[in-house]
Amino acid sequence: MSVSVNLSNFYPFYAQEKMDALAGELAGAHDALLEGTRAGNDFLGWVKLPVDYDKDEFERILAAAAKIKEDSDVLVVIGIGGSYLGARAGIEFCVSPNFNMIDRKGYPQVFFLGNHISGETVNEVISLIGDRDFSINVISKSGTTTEPAIAFRVMKDLLIKKYGDKANDRIYATTDRARGALKSQATACGYESFIVPDNVGGRFSVLSAVGLLPLAAAGVDIKAMMQGAADAMEAITADKSMSNPAWAYAAARSVAYREGKAVEILGCYEPRFHTVSEWWKQLYGESEGKDLKGLMPASLDLTTDLHSMGQFVQDGTRIMIETIMTIEKPTSTVVIEKAEDDGDGLNYLAGATMDYVNKQAQAGTALAHVDGGVPNIKLSIPDSSAYSFGQMVYFFEFAVGLSGYLLDINPFNQPGVEAYKKNMFALLGKPGYEELRAELMKKM
Amino acid sequence: MSVSVNLSNFYPFYAQEKMDALAGELAGAHDALLEGTRAGNDFLGWVKLPVDYDKDEFERILAAAAKIKEDSDVLVVIGIGGSYLGARAGIEFCVSPNFNMIDRKGYPQVFFLGNHISGETVNEVISLIGDRDFSINVISKSGTTTEPAIAFRVMKDLLIKKYGDKANDRIYATTDRARGALKSQATACGYESFIVPDNVGGRFSVLSAVGLLPLAAAGVDIKAMMQGAADAMEAITADKSMSNPAWAYAAARSVAYREGKAVEILGCYEPRFHTVSEWWKQLYGESEGKDLKGLMPASLDLTTDLHSMGQFVQDGTRIMIETIMTIEKPTSTVVIEKAEDDGDGLNYLAGATMDYVNKQAQAGTALAHVDGGVPNIKLSIPDSSAYSFGQMVYFFEFAVGLSGYLLDINPFNQPGVEAYKKNMFALLGKPGYEELRAELMKKM
Repeated sequence: MSVSVNLSNFYPFYAQEKMDALAGELAGAHDALLEGTRAGNDFLGWVKLPVDYDKDEFERILAAAAKIKEDSDVLVVIGIGGSYLGARAGIEFCVSPNFNMIDRKGYPQVFFLGNHISGETVNEVISLIGDRDFSINVISKSGTTTEPAIAFRVMKDLLIKKYGDKANDRIYATTDRARGALKSQATACGYESFIVPDNVGGRFSVLSAVGLLPLAAAGVDIKAMMQGAADAMEAITADKSMSNPAWAYAAARSVAYREGKAVEILGCYEPRFHTVSEWWKQLYGESEGKDLKGLMPASLDLTTDLHSMGQFVQDGTRIMIETIMTIEKPTSTVVIEKAEDDGDGLNYLAGATMDYVNKQAQAGTALAHVDGGVPNIKLSIPDSSAYSFGQMVYFFEFAVGLSGYLLDINPFNQPGVEAYKKNMFALLGKPGYEELRAELMKKM
Repeated sequence: MSVSVNLSNFYPFYAQEKMDALAGELAGAHDALLEGTRAGNDFLGWVKLPVDYDKDEFERILAAAAKIKEDSDVLVVIGIGGSYLGARAGIEFCVSPNFNMIDRKGYPQVFFLGNHISGETVNEVISLIGDRDFSINVISKSGTTTEPAIAFRVMKDLLIKKYGDKANDRIYATTDRARGALKSQATACGYESFIVPDNVGGRFSVLSAVGLLPLAAAGVDIKAMMQGAADAMEAITADKSMSNPAWAYAAARSVAYREGKAVEILGCYEPRFHTVSEWWKQLYGESEGKDLKGLMPASLDLTTDLHSMGQFVQDGTRIMIETIMTIEKPTSTVVIEKAEDDGDGLNYLAGATMDYVNKQAQAGTALAHVDGGVPNIKLSIPDSSAYSFGQMVYFFEFAVGLSGYLLDINPFNQPGVEAYKKNMFALLGKPGYEELRAELMKKM
């Protein structure tokens, strides 16, 4: 297991004994995740997903990715929430945040749509595609979620205009096994289909077809990713002790929450982590933010945001803990050369790498924030490989399962997400929402 | 004044009288900003900047932008914090979040560096530039801030390797009027120079040369932007009443903070607003987050994040207020066409625009969040023009001045930003930090 947790900058605020005192609760939560004995147990498919998945479907995903590479310059991935963030996080982390601009070595560009209702953005993506060849991966369990449904209707029309009868060969539907609007369309039109497992919630679905097809299409080594997740699963599920990194992380954030902290900030010193933080926000915010409970997830890109949010973290309202992910080995670095004039005063760094400076900034910042009253959790992973990404995904998933059970909520539902949808349907005049519409109109 | 504030979804939580009761405090703060009678009064240059700026320099900026357009495919903008966020926010808002990918109509690509210490990212940008022509705009008051200094050293070497003696003609330094490492280099090497005004802090500097040159180079109409800011200045500084939108916004967030809220989330339903939120985070977090005070700024992209942070906002710990910016008129929209089969059940929207649906989603979400216990502030601007951007910038700046004074802090300093730098210097062995180094080493 190569994800590690270091609490040395956390203990000055919360003694190790406080975390250790949660061992009994953690053991109970751990067993409940493995045995399915608590709330949300119909959504525990993610626990064994790294080994217990459809191997034939996995091969079909690789074949589909190869076909897309062959026949498309662009893949449009349509999905929202868990049908978007995991794939995007993996592509940015393993390939680059600039994945659509760098030399893609023959892999298609990937544009994400259906994660908003911005018409101008849809038009911009259409113009970015231009007259190039493209395919669509539409990801929706139901097929009726408004954002992806609109984007799919628009992009499918475009595909049909361009390819006529052959358009259906360029649509890949990741959806329910048997039911729903998208499944019906896929069957009727003969789209190649992949499955959103029934027992895996959206925010836990990056290791299913939901994440796998976009990741593979963008050139991420999904075999290595699944191996990383499987190795993490083996290590994490077997270790019922505080040396289990998922236990340590869950314990630390649980203690901080119980003792009054309100916000957890996740940060990293490499830009490629940015969307991993966004994925993590959904994973933690949607799993824990219910029944008026939970640490609110927020994120920072570092050192960038030390020159924006840094002041607040250092000296503002004391409501937060901070969790910093270290990527031990960057994909490359830059040696700082000696300058003849030393006009910028950097010659004391001559011969050092930027990575060395970055790591010292990280260490210095952690100490400064500790001095400022911010408990720090240090996470680390060896590199930004697909294998490490798989490990990290499993680590964060298992830890939120533990942490959610310690919060005494169901970490695997998201009842609050419906509220805005109902109001939106009512305001849009969707049949069946007449009563709510009348009610809302009075409020407006 | 075309920025408006609507508190109808705020009053259910805090009666209008509570905001009105702050009128006296607001009048005092308002006068203090105009007359310079309170803490931070040496940094109030932003108050009159929209009309009181160097017109000759402005013309030189336009000429420099034209020269860059003529001789460069890429402009590398080197800066961090306020020397980065305003320009990026303006480019993404007025041009596009995909500004480096869309048809740029002859304007150069813009890459931002010096806002982190990631060597792999520097290497990637170098490879993205390839053998194309480029120029550098280095923005640093002192010239010794670590992040931009390293990036400038690296990129300047590259420029010299490529252009030899002519390299200096491709470097534009935005720095102190008279002092500092970058000013000295600029003078010695003959870089064309622009000024970071002494009395304008970094986070208030987007309307100075700091923001103007990158914005103009990227094709933003900076004359219109300054006009928008000037019109906003005229309206806002003249109106000492609660009908002043800056008063209304400052009053609302002050009341919420005093009554126990800890977080303000800023969100918008158009992706082009994303980096405006990042700029706002610095403006508000760095201005107010001190003396253990302040609302912590956070942001959401909508509807995107309703499927990640939406659950938390709806049902999680009740610590936040929400401020939503409406862009009344998008640059374009998409009409939802009728489908023969209606497989996705969207035909009830046939003939509607995505913008109409987006606005209903926004209205429905606000009501849902109000039901969930989240006070909502509604802001709006007419469009994403440079003129509107200028108005919005001035609105947010004046409001944070008011709000900061109501918090009884100095809104114009940032003492906490030094803490990490000192530790970093000590860990890096910078001469002069030996004692701190010894102290930190004991802690590690």
